[in-house]
Amino acid sequence: MRLALLGGTGDVGKALALRLTRDTDVEVVIGSRSSEKATDAVDTYGAELEARGIDYSLTGVENARAAREADLVVLSVPPYYVEGTVEDVADALEPGTILVSPAVGMTGDETGLHYKPPSVGSVAELAASVAPAGVPTVGACTNLPAERLADLDEDVDMDTFVFGDEEDANETVADVIGSIRGIRVLDAGPLANAADVESLTPLLITMGRYNDDVDHAGVKLV
Amino acid sequence: MRLALLGGTGDVGKALALRLTRDTDVEVVIGSRSSEKATDAVDTYGAELEARGIDYSLTGVENARAAREADLVVLSVPPYYVEGTVEDVADALEPGTILVSPAVGMTGDETGLHYKPPSVGSVAELAASVAPAGVPTVGACTNLPAERLADLDEDVDMDTFVFGDEEDANETVADVIGSIRGIRVLDAGPLANAADVESLTPLLITMGRYNDDVDHAGVKLV
Repeated sequence: MRLALLGGTGDVGKALALRLTRDTDVEVVIGSRSSEKATDAVDTYGAELEARGIDYSLTGVENARAAREADLVVLSVPPYYVEGTVEDVADALEPGTILVSPAVGMTGDETGLHYKPPSVGSVAELAASVAPAGVPTVGACTNLPAERLADLDEDVDMDTFVFGDEEDANETVADVIGSIRGIRVLDAGPLANAADVESLTPLLITMGRYNDDVDHAGVKLV
Repeated sequence: MRLALLGGTGDVGKALALRLTRDTDVEVVIGSRSSEKATDAVDTYGAELEARGIDYSLTGVENARAAREADLVVLSVPPYYVEGTVEDVADALEPGTILVSPAVGMTGDETGLHYKPPSVGSVAELAASVAPAGVPTVGACTNLPAERLADLDEDVDMDTFVFGDEEDANETVADVIGSIRGIRVLDAGPLANAADVESLTPLLITMGRYNDDVDHAGVKLV
């Protein structure tokens, strides 16, 4: 299983690269708009893994090269880059490749962050709307606190959600993400439910502002 | 502390009546549009409490009578009755009374429940928009699975959120709800954040449809 992290130099990319390398046998490729940034990230992540005695075989290349031959292509970019990123790599996506959408549209004001989806209804649906034929989109990891997961010293025990219109693709993504230690993957149904899931993220972030005992909160259904 | 549960014959009313009676010294008054339904509910709830050897002093009266002289007035009615219920009892609300809004606007389709707030943005803001002057509205308990809490045999360990524009009122509500065993109350800020909190509820309900190990889910920030 080969997984490309487009925009893999950010927090979500770092979190998934480190945890997938530590906890699974998924082959991780870091993508970026600049191959130099991608290789810099590989150096940084590699140092963290090495310091913990964890074997790794990360590579860093441009987004389109990362997407080529990957089984899973994670759009770990800000929400306003999702559409352009899919378009940039579209030619590199073979039918059967799965796009994974972890981004959430939010807007901030003096009271906190609020959900602000793109006009199609959600970021995952936006990605799906520009994905090539035969390339399903699966929403996943939208509510994981990337800053905390990017720190391998932190043990987590939290839930995340997978949602998409092709059950096989959902299951593949659920299997990979659920292989990360301490992460339970819940099935949130089809893309029509994407906004219901994505809208949880601003609440989780905002809660850190009002509660001393909450910071970069994850969530657990109980 | 006297707390009126308007529409207290439903699941939310039952859950709060039973748990507040068991776990706190709050005096609970069940309100309904019909005083007969209110006294019927008192009989039912009383039998459950008695069977567990729990002392109680529940009363059941019409909504407006329940609201009069209450410190907290919980709008435990469906979201489309919130506006009318506040208007019906407005004359009975003395300045300083706190309205508590647990309802959430939702719509269902073949994929699940989805958030559907009233046009002012949220049910709590709708209640606030028709509340008399000097009567603050506090959102609370929007995400508690009432069916489970209405069963006193179930131990819970879950979070709920309080949100409103008057900090003293928020704290009063947080103190009361947080006195229920196993419930942690988190501060979600002002009413401007109401939609961010209320929108969590349809997701929690929908998850029961897609996951065998999830039913009437509560939530815990971790």
